[in-house]
Amino acid sequence: MPIDRNQLSEKVVARLTLYRRLLIEQFDPSRKQIYSHELARLACVSSAQVRRDIMAIEYFGMPNRGYEVRELIDDLSRTLDNPDSDRVAMIGIGNLGRAIIAFFNNRRPNLKITAAFDIDPEKIDRVMYGCRCYPMEKLGDVVRAEQITTGVLTVTPSVAQTVADSMVEAGISGILNYTTVPLRVPPNVYLLDRDMTMALETVAFFSRRCLSPVPQLASRG
Amino acid sequence: MPIDRNQLSEKVVARLTLYRRLLIEQFDPSRKQIYSHELARLACVSSAQVRRDIMAIEYFGMPNRGYEVRELIDDLSRTLDNPDSDRVAMIGIGNLGRAIIAFFNNRRPNLKITAAFDIDPEKIDRVMYGCRCYPMEKLGDVVRAEQITTGVLTVTPSVAQTVADSMVEAGISGILNYTTVPLRVPPNVYLLDRDMTMALETVAFFSRRCLSPVPQLASRG
Repeated sequence: MPIDRNQLSEKVVARLTLYRRLLIEQFDPSRKQIYSHELARLACVSSAQVRRDIMAIEYFGMPNRGYEVRELIDDLSRTLDNPDSDRVAMIGIGNLGRAIIAFFNNRRPNLKITAAFDIDPEKIDRVMYGCRCYPMEKLGDVVRAEQITTGVLTVTPSVAQTVADSMVEAGISGILNYTTVPLRVPPNVYLLDRDMTMALETVAFFSRRCLSPVPQLASRG
Repeated sequence: MPIDRNQLSEKVVARLTLYRRLLIEQFDPSRKQIYSHELARLACVSSAQVRRDIMAIEYFGMPNRGYEVRELIDDLSRTLDNPDSDRVAMIGIGNLGRAIIAFFNNRRPNLKITAAFDIDPEKIDRVMYGCRCYPMEKLGDVVRAEQITTGVLTVTPSVAQTVADSMVEAGISGILNYTTVPLRVPPNVYLLDRDMTMALETVAFFSRRCLSPVPQLASRG
């Protein structure tokens, strides 16, 4: 029975991507089964959380053997991945844009940063980690031609909203926003804000004197 | 009456830092008052949200004039800032570490990345944007000597937990984790995870076909 993806929340999806990565990259490859408490330990969440999340994709372990690792990875991938692979654009190629491309490409067969955009003539037409940099004016054409659905935004604050508008107009329906600017997008576009200023100021605030209980689980992702 | 900082949640603190930044950087400097709906528009949240957040710091606007901008900035700063200023360490100086230092330093008088750490001999003793890079072995000594309370972690996954342990041992009580590794920290240490892999995979998932209502407000910060 296919999973109803509409039922999965942002936090559940984020943790499912984490479980898959941990199973692939960190779990002993000679082991065929994994218990929920072992996966929970790797992910720094509770065992109950792992069981609830994995039940949400309708995969069920065996009482005495836990989960079949291979099956679980396959089921996670069926839920999380686009069978046609997701194409991502990086908009703005400063230190941060480069860091993300370097980190990401060649890691996920189904998720690839295929095009980058910048206004700096020095960067245009260069290829970084398999990803070509185009002039910003080509954004619409390239996004449409390559069927890019997701964009990572790392441009300077003054142009962030204008560039986001062009991304949406070109058909991008998911934006990961690393700028310091809150963006306005239509309701059918998914937006995740990852403003580093807010993150660092928030951590500094709570680091001062144990101001709150530790929110590891809540804030993961 | 002093604010009880213990009552402020992570999301409220993150939005308060955003409001302050918007008031300083984006609001018309000739205006002395701002209405909650104007601040809400800049922050892409609802007016009710703005009013609730600002009430949490016990600042109250006037019914017909809104908030006094200067007073509001001062009250936000009194709540958010450490009067002695917060000192931050950057651990790991790749593209991402550099991007964060470049972005942050010289912006916030009360929050400064004062030391960086790396294992690469080429980077050690260099000064980037006013921030000196030390060898990783000096972490404990420098953190203690400079009374650093907050650390940003951007090291390679294989050493992330070990380095986090050293940070905690040296007295760091807030960690902003940009590695892909879930970290285990004691309950008196505040941890905020900002794994870029999870963020990009989550956005790609939801970008596919308007899988969920747009969670801008919930995910901000």
